[in-house]
Amino acid sequence: MARNSTSEFKAVILAGGSGERFWPLSTPERPKQFLKVFGGESLIRQAVSRLKGLVEPENVFVVTSKSLLKATKRELPELPSANIVGEPMRRDTGAAIALSVGLCGGGTMGVFSSDQLVGDVKGFQAAVKKAVAVAAKQDKIVTLGIKPSAPSTAFGYVDPKTGRFVEKPDLAKAKAYLKKGFLWNAGMFIGRVDTFRSAFAAHAPDLLPLCGGVKMNRLSATYEPLPKISFDFAVMEALSREGGVDVVPGDFGWDDVGGYLAFDRYYPHDADGNVVDGDCTVVESSGSICVSKGPRVAVLGASDLVVVATKDAVLVVPKSKAGELKKIVAKG
Amino acid sequence: MARNSTSEFKAVILAGGSGERFWPLSTPERPKQFLKVFGGESLIRQAVSRLKGLVEPENVFVVTSKSLLKATKRELPELPSANIVGEPMRRDTGAAIALSVGLCGGGTMGVFSSDQLVGDVKGFQAAVKKAVAVAAKQDKIVTLGIKPSAPSTAFGYVDPKTGRFVEKPDLAKAKAYLKKGFLWNAGMFIGRVDTFRSAFAAHAPDLLPLCGGVKMNRLSATYEPLPKISFDFAVMEALSREGGVDVVPGDFGWDDVGGYLAFDRYYPHDADGNVVDGDCTVVESSGSICVSKGPRVAVLGASDLVVVATKDAVLVVPKSKAGELKKIVAKG
Repeated sequence: MARNSTSEFKAVILAGGSGERFWPLSTPERPKQFLKVFGGESLIRQAVSRLKGLVEPENVFVVTSKSLLKATKRELPELPSANIVGEPMRRDTGAAIALSVGLCGGGTMGVFSSDQLVGDVKGFQAAVKKAVAVAAKQDKIVTLGIKPSAPSTAFGYVDPKTGRFVEKPDLAKAKAYLKKGFLWNAGMFIGRVDTFRSAFAAHAPDLLPLCGGVKMNRLSATYEPLPKISFDFAVMEALSREGGVDVVPGDFGWDDVGGYLAFDRYYPHDADGNVVDGDCTVVESSGSICVSKGPRVAVLGASDLVVVATKDAVLVVPKSKAGELKKIVAKG
Repeated sequence: MARNSTSEFKAVILAGGSGERFWPLSTPERPKQFLKVFGGESLIRQAVSRLKGLVEPENVFVVTSKSLLKATKRELPELPSANIVGEPMRRDTGAAIALSVGLCGGGTMGVFSSDQLVGDVKGFQAAVKKAVAVAAKQDKIVTLGIKPSAPSTAFGYVDPKTGRFVEKPDLAKAKAYLKKGFLWNAGMFIGRVDTFRSAFAAHAPDLLPLCGGVKMNRLSATYEPLPKISFDFAVMEALSREGGVDVVPGDFGWDDVGGYLAFDRYYPHDADGNVVDGDCTVVESSGSICVSKGPRVAVLGASDLVVVATKDAVLVVPKSKAGELKKIVAKG
């Protein structure tokens, strides 16, 4: 039976995550993709749901870490159990995507994240369909370039005219990139499986063995010697320099939910500009984010502060340092 | 058998307290006097212990609230159960001391607090003995005037030359009072029981019925109509205007442990001047007080902040507002 290009399309959702940016709501045992604080359902559940109609469940793969395998399968019961694979150790996105190539085997594939938000699912699906069509007829990897909402220094950029990638800029450069029409590199890549395989062969031969498919009982031995390197750095940057990258622009309310400041984007504010979620009393404070999933929290006279409590742990950090949680999580 | 003046001496410890200033370590159900964070033992336990050798246990009375009666008896098993009395409702120190007069019946009595610290117990006992001697031979109430360690605006003052009280001053006045040799009014009053009774008769006749002794089963009915008024305001100020007050100075490391800033006085500091007690990680912060009796607490980049966590509640407040906890406890 003939299948159209979309039905041959396979999707891989990368679901590693160390649980640092939303500590203590998220932890290494329950990282960001399991958070249910944005949009009601967990982020990974939303990542799978937004592929509905675009990819058959049997063509959706999830690459997570071995320690999260059980929790991930529990969260995504509609996927075939064998489609959810646990990496034995962290080797960054280079290895995870090479492993994905092996899982997909053939056809066209797309790589997505498990811990991002998309406001406009129809727009997302339209962009992916377009990228699949573009990728199917040429030997290039297509990246979804997100229309920037601000000159962010948190993302790498891609020039949609040339497919050239540039690293996370400082603010001045970011502003210049916006003027030039550069787009955010959101880490969503679409291409023919053989195109991915060739790209690994050319630019990251260390990782090529994974692209051929690995028996699960051999995974530890295969992973152990692999370099820790991102797919962007290992493959895409080199590929973009030689014209092997195409860009499909997207403007579908993409948000990487980078950290606690996301609460300011998705939660209502009180009269003093505070976000208050859970059993919190916030008095004589403004611009603070106070979240409790456990004990009662009282904040008095403390502005622009992030206070988050669970029954196990409490975080107190000024908004200006909310991106530096690594410093305390590492000490725990 | 003849008894000397000290053995006739009776002590009353006032142990009300609303648990606001140390919320959430203290609560209405477990107010400040039960705190064990200063000096190992609870403050009320310390208040009783420092009378040892000065007053026989059968002459030590405790006036607390009805709701705290059980907990107070449990904390002070060496006192006769009948000596610990629970007020049916809060009517401030006026009623509590009038009730104490009734409990003591005769002889000489001293009124003390259950939630203060004394560094030098020998010095305290010497001052009390002197006050008892002074009070025994005249019809005056003796107040222990504490030598100020700073021009505090948190206490009323007393002029040791005249026995005149002055209310809590502003900083400029407080400085002037220190120059004049005024002492802190610490709420410790010593006098003959009949002197106290006469003072109530003259200045607070509403409260006089309590001074005659009330049957415990009538306490609620007696308390209900009483005014909420402090002993200082109801009796001592008027008494001091007519020369009925004498002052015995004391310098024995008295501390009313007013609130969380007391942690700075009794706990060691880390290299950045933070007090860290319990399972706390404090990073890139200085001058903060972080206390946990429950969950792990992480403070990143937040200075001069008080963060206190129990399993039930979390407090976040700048030191500058640590005296204003009423604002949040009331909202709980």
